[in-house]
Amino acid sequence: MFQFTITAKNDRARTGIFTTPHGDLITPVFAPVGTQATVKTLTPEHLKDINATLVLSNTYHLYLRPGDELVRDLGGLHKFMQWQRPMLTDSGGFQVFSLSQTRKINDDGVTFKSHIDGSMHRFTPEKSIAIQENLGADIVMAFDECSDPNDKAYSAIAMDRTHRWAERSLKAHTRPDQALFGIIQGGVQADLRTASAKFIASLDTPGIAIGGLSVGETKQEMHDMLDIVTPLLPENKPRYLMGVGTPEDLINGVLRGIDIFDCVLPTRLARHHSAFAPEGRLNLMNASFARDESPIDETCDCYACKTFTRAYIRHLIVAKELLAGTLLSIHNLRALIRLVEQIRVYIAEGTFESHVPELLKQWHGNAERGKQRVERE
Amino acid sequence: MFQFTITAKNDRARTGIFTTPHGDLITPVFAPVGTQATVKTLTPEHLKDINATLVLSNTYHLYLRPGDELVRDLGGLHKFMQWQRPMLTDSGGFQVFSLSQTRKINDDGVTFKSHIDGSMHRFTPEKSIAIQENLGADIVMAFDECSDPNDKAYSAIAMDRTHRWAERSLKAHTRPDQALFGIIQGGVQADLRTASAKFIASLDTPGIAIGGLSVGETKQEMHDMLDIVTPLLPENKPRYLMGVGTPEDLINGVLRGIDIFDCVLPTRLARHHSAFAPEGRLNLMNASFARDESPIDETCDCYACKTFTRAYIRHLIVAKELLAGTLLSIHNLRALIRLVEQIRVYIAEGTFESHVPELLKQWHGNAERGKQRVERE
Repeated sequence: MFQFTITAKNDRARTGIFTTPHGDLITPVFAPVGTQATVKTLTPEHLKDINATLVLSNTYHLYLRPGDELVRDLGGLHKFMQWQRPMLTDSGGFQVFSLSQTRKINDDGVTFKSHIDGSMHRFTPEKSIAIQENLGADIVMAFDECSDPNDKAYSAIAMDRTHRWAERSLKAHTRPDQALFGIIQGGVQADLRTASAKFIASLDTPGIAIGGLSVGETKQEMHDMLDIVTPLLPENKPRYLMGVGTPEDLINGVLRGIDIFDCVLPTRLARHHSAFAPEGRLNLMNASFARDESPIDETCDCYACKTFTRAYIRHLIVAKELLAGTLLSIHNLRALIRLVEQIRVYIAEGTFESHVPELLKQWHGNAERGKQRVERE
Repeated sequence: MFQFTITAKNDRARTGIFTTPHGDLITPVFAPVGTQATVKTLTPEHLKDINATLVLSNTYHLYLRPGDELVRDLGGLHKFMQWQRPMLTDSGGFQVFSLSQTRKINDDGVTFKSHIDGSMHRFTPEKSIAIQENLGADIVMAFDECSDPNDKAYSAIAMDRTHRWAERSLKAHTRPDQALFGIIQGGVQADLRTASAKFIASLDTPGIAIGGLSVGETKQEMHDMLDIVTPLLPENKPRYLMGVGTPEDLINGVLRGIDIFDCVLPTRLARHHSAFAPEGRLNLMNASFARDESPIDETCDCYACKTFTRAYIRHLIVAKELLAGTLLSIHNLRALIRLVEQIRVYIAEGTFESHVPELLKQWHGNAERGKQRVERE
């Protein structure tokens, strides 16, 4: 069911095809985030228009609302949100640790308080898998614990727990039409990341995720960890760098052998009036755009850029019209999807590495992802 | 330029074609309202998908933000908001009277305070026309004064002023590619409405608007005024009933010879989670829809109904996801556009009058438009 075929390589960078029950994913791939079974402000038609192929949704959010059993009874997540291409759900671990104010963790699982109504809930590896089986995404995640990357002692404990939980997740998982990925943890500690990569690679899974990055460490630390981890992973499994990232992160990730990315950045920036652009990230609320008749990005093929001026989008923002967020979401997501499409072509041509300096320069002004990333959505 | 050809009649009900520089309008027509140069939450593609043909935008709002001169300099309203089909702007009079807290009116015009920043502005008939010429809609309105319908003395004064302002608007208007409509006022007073209909009908305009209805009077009073007014109007000019209305109002309006309607009701209801439906207006936030796998309306051909369940839309509402408003706006607007499309077929067949009881029954549960209508958007 879940074949991964590498079609071209440039040193560690790869392009390939991952087969899923909802169609082939061409990698590297960037997945828009649809936290609550909707990519904020967009219809599935918009997502098809920008050539989104994989959409992520959040186990924690859907478990709390509308409930995974309801989603199952209504035919699963694909049918519920009317997205017929591949989907991925996370394990809920990250959200339990980042969104829930009260939580008690032990080796068995985590008890936490809902951020919506304060009610108490408990996730274990078995529970996370049961929820994800109810949701029915094509790619699902083992339950994991994301540590503060700079706390070495805690990172070691969380990593060990993540390994035990990966084994239990694998044992609990029953649906052959779902690819369960194990998750590598280990903070920014070289020895922990090495151990975790080896352990997760030893499990019988069709793919491998790398968690606990882009959570407050430096760019250099993230790159160092990827440089340690990916050489230890089997070639024939797709590698998913969770919750990453900026255009720069995508380029640097592919360079280090990553195949799958997801991030809320494009839609979150849209809600804050920001757009990816060749001259650097633009805040379209700025008065300088009031009479700007050019599109957000002359080179972009998205509906927003093909149709509207910056002046119009700026007017929508100033007038607090929601269409602004829709148009900026379309553009920002398309920008990252175009970037991975371009990278795939370069890898197929064998020219990716030689294009990296130019790509990094082109996206330089869009690099920062903000000082803090508290949640995946 | 502005030919109106009646293609079929059923007593007073008519179907026809009004030619404009941006294409033919088949009447009766319902116009979605795009107050600030956007029909809230929808793209122009969505509007084309629901077969919207005419879109209204508000002179008062666009004058204040982004400014009519900016819109003119960027190529006019059609280009600014990328709507290539016919457009209509109102005169700004209604908004000045309903939205502005401070206003001073005399026979020359109105001084008012912006509801956005409290700045002072002045509208005269000449100013309203100048703004509307800058905006560049196909159909524009004479400057008018909308009175409290139950205040007979004030209604008489406002009517007289509206007549003088109509003459001045006509004199000020220079663009041959815009159809300037005069507006009939007169509250709910039979004698005033008679006088106003005769006066406005005597002017050389390609169309006639009826203002000051659906502003707090009863349904019966509105019907009575239409029964007085439309028989006094020339057959060969389209008649526009401003700011109306509910499905029931559309049926009753067409029955009394109205050709053009606009109302914020469909998009406003969408923001309040309400949907037009055969069993009556639904509040989709209701828990009873949590597992409802049917579409909003089985008989509807809109994207929302063809694609999503009530359960999914209810989830979006509860989760405060903006896509809910987009989907409900698509459906509610399509519902009224389908209604006028159906009415046109009945008139062409010569069966409209015999279908009226059934149509009124079908739409009965969707009839109320709320106790108060303070603004057109």
